Amino acid sequence: MADRFDQTRVKRENDPAQPTAHDQQGESEPMNTSPSDSGAQQTSHEPLRVALLGCGVVGSAVARLLIEHTDDLAARVGRPLEIAGIAVRRTGIERPGIDPDLFTTDAEGLVARHDVDLVVEVIGGIEPARTLILRAIEHGASVVTANKALLAEDGPRLFEAAEKAGVDLYYEAAVAGAIPIIRPLRESLVGDDVTTVMGIVNGTTNFILDKMHTEGSGFDEVLTEAQSLGYAEADPTADVEGFDAAAKAAILAGLAFHSRVTAGDVHREGITEISSSDIAAAKSMDCTVKALAICRSEIVHGERFISVRTHPAMIPNSHPLASVGGAYNAVVVESTNAGRLMFYGPGAGGDPTASAVMGDLVTVARNRVRGTAGPGESAYANRRVMSMDDVITRYFISLEVVDQPGVLATVAACFADHHVSVQTMRQEASLRSDGAGARLVLVTHSAPEAALSATVRALGDLPQVHEVLSVMRVEGE
Amino acid sequence: MADRFDQTRVKRENDPAQPTAHDQQGESEPMNTSPSDSGAQQTSHEPLRVALLGCGVVGSAVARLLIEHTDDLAARVGRPLEIAGIAVRRTGIERPGIDPDLFTTDAEGLVARHDVDLVVEVIGGIEPARTLILRAIEHGASVVTANKALLAEDGPRLFEAAEKAGVDLYYEAAVAGAIPIIRPLRESLVGDDVTTVMGIVNGTTNFILDKMHTEGSGFDEVLTEAQSLGYAEADPTADVEGFDAAAKAAILAGLAFHSRVTAGDVHREGITEISSSDIAAAKSMDCTVKALAICRSEIVHGERFISVRTHPAMIPNSHPLASVGGAYNAVVVESTNAGRLMFYGPGAGGDPTASAVMGDLVTVARNRVRGTAGPGESAYANRRVMSMDDVITRYFISLEVVDQPGVLATVAACFADHHVSVQTMRQEASLRSDGAGARLVLVTHSAPEAALSATVRALGDLPQVHEVLSVMRVEGE
Repeated sequence: MADRFDQTRVKRENDPAQPTAHDQQGESEPMNTSPSDSGAQQTSHEPLRVALLGCGVVGSAVARLLIEHTDDLAARVGRPLEIAGIAVRRTGIERPGIDPDLFTTDAEGLVARHDVDLVVEVIGGIEPARTLILRAIEHGASVVTANKALLAEDGPRLFEAAEKAGVDLYYEAAVAGAIPIIRPLRESLVGDDVTTVMGIVNGTTNFILDKMHTEGSGFDEVLTEAQSLGYAEADPTADVEGFDAAAKAAILAGLAFHSRVTAGDVHREGITEISSSDIAAAKSMDCTVKALAICRSEIVHGERFISVRTHPAMIPNSHPLASVGGAYNAVVVESTNAGRLMFYGPGAGGDPTASAVMGDLVTVARNRVRGTAGPGESAYANRRVMSMDDVITRYFISLEVVDQPGVLATVAACFADHHVSVQTMRQEASLRSDGAGARLVLVTHSAPEAALSATVRALGDLPQVHEVLSVMRVEGE
Repeated sequence: MADRFDQTRVKRENDPAQPTAHDQQGESEPMNTSPSDSGAQQTSHEPLRVALLGCGVVGSAVARLLIEHTDDLAARVGRPLEIAGIAVRRTGIERPGIDPDLFTTDAEGLVARHDVDLVVEVIGGIEPARTLILRAIEHGASVVTANKALLAEDGPRLFEAAEKAGVDLYYEAAVAGAIPIIRPLRESLVGDDVTTVMGIVNGTTNFILDKMHTEGSGFDEVLTEAQSLGYAEADPTADVEGFDAAAKAAILAGLAFHSRVTAGDVHREGITEISSSDIAAAKSMDCTVKALAICRSEIVHGERFISVRTHPAMIPNSHPLASVGGAYNAVVVESTNAGRLMFYGPGAGGDPTASAVMGDLVTVARNRVRGTAGPGESAYANRRVMSMDDVITRYFISLEVVDQPGVLATVAACFADHHVSVQTMRQEASLRSDGAGARLVLVTHSAPEAALSATVRALGDLPQVHEVLSVMRVEGE
């Protein structure tokens, strides 16, 4: 390992663009001690030792940053950061720039090592990540994770374990990649009353919907393109069925409303049913279809609830989220005093995610140097998640109907029967090849989800309705 | 004071939409003890006592939030927050909802009180704010301030005092109102290498320039309108001459580049010289004129410097800052790994600024409950601010010239003599009433500021040039 640091130092000294903290501070001693003397006594030069769990795209970017920026990181933390080991599934794979001796397949052993101060978990998934994080916390390490699925399934247990052990559990990278959204919600807005968090938190589905808008292509065609470009996985289920966005929505809702929300609490709809005609319909309304995660503070009969859901929706082109293109993410936060804030940036990718991990790692390392831990999660408000049936939304609906007198009245009566008020109704030429019939395009006023879906079912049963062409929620007004 | 809390409690209990932390936690005791027993012993119910310096628009909003959200704040902090006193210039002014007994004109006495844990400074200006903050820190209080002018003039002294005393000095509200930008730079991006911070950080000038764009009006006319609407002060100097933006730029640059930057280091140009014809020229280039604060990491002869400046500039309409309208603020941060992030929201106003102050107040109070302080400022990199002469920018220039053969060659030679490369040059009809002559519109490639300004001076001296109509920097590409 001494070799590794020596190589890093030589490389840096040959690069005049890369200043070194000890040069600038006029110190003659290097800030890193070699491993052989690092454990001798507690000094400010003694490294904090980092165990890295996982060395895929994000993990290898984190390892690279730890190795290449040793001196800057030491200056920012107050002590050097040193890699204690990297847990991988298989050793023997060439990873350029990383000392092969650091790799181990014994992740459990690594997190239990007495000389590990900080653990970075970038394996993903529930197990073995959960066991490893709990083990690390038990052994007194602070943990940085990017694991949205685990936090959304079992976050409270992990947070409690960290709180009890007096260590940090930070996870900025779990939601919206490099975009700082966890800290703003946990700290910057902690003196305010957040009312809404609405965001594009999945880059893959945003890329697909954006392509469908700009190229007019169908879902399957664009998905194949996204896969070939590396924007979608071979098994795209987690993205296109909304599981990834639901996990992030659960994390955001819990933080924003000081309550416990799990992925299972989130109403989830994917984008696989979105057709080119849905996109065309949105365009005709001067709207864009986006896959949104929406968390709202709701008051029902004087009691405060949370609504939390992820689904595609039409938003007006004037809305700030409408212009978020490609694989970018953006989150709008509305609160009583701050008003509307927006956070925008790259939502995925190795380097952006590594940036968020490194920000957390430096922060928890600083806390450790100061002998403290940062603010934990607060779930004191203990609000319940309301049933999707009771959530108030608006629908866009288009129908193929028979072209007969009285059809409009029948359709309007169907809405009235379900106490759903229609905001706009427009009759257009039929899209059917035989040209018979007509097409009705409607947008409702806000109404409970249950009433809206019952209306759509009843419309489908009307003899005058040939087909319900498109149903989509309308958000952002 | 007991009366005040009793009134608050009664009010809250009559409002079913407002949950109380102790109700939800099933506690039968109120979370606030009366002042008579609060000092008796250290319990988790003992309030942290807040001294408020200033009770203008922001201060009164902070006081109102502290009074109206007692229970939520107590749950978030871990102990109740209680107002110890409010320093004002004159007592006897009616401030609805605030106990008149809290007011005092003895600010020095207030910050020196042994029972004050936290001090919120929203007076603004250098003195007496600086003396009061230093006094508060000496007495062991943590401080939250919104005072950009003071931080940009004497920040290092204040940060050192806070570090030495082991207390917090937080200032999220000092830059871009409610938009979380201090924490993202200090913590979220602390493991990354920030290359650029570029933002619209003054709502007044953005409002004025936006109006000039949409209404085609001149600067003086729009300034008068902004003053009548409350968007500009009676004395608008701090805003329109760029002093406010320069202070914010200094704070952002210092944080982003781990160095010390003061307002005096910032190259500052106001917007008072921007004419309707500048705006029209920008429009013709598919650009928008914005007053920007720009902080960049620069490498000159292998050494890292900072460039920091505030001035109006043309940016392409496709740039994310171009569409930031009205009094809104937005900050774009670019870093090596995270890529480009944007933060957007209300940049001023009592409630948004109070939201940022309250976020800091809860955070420093949590730190106090845990017996610690948050991460301080880091200036280890100690980079110097480079001379504006050496900063590389691009210029837009329009000239009235004589309509003679050879003029283009003469003008082009003038650029070449100063080693400035021209990207585009276009000849247009003269704007002069006599119709004689022609107009040249040029955009340069990037060149050192000194060469560009020398070029403009030389152009003005050419006998073939009637008038230099418009000179503006071009940013954002």
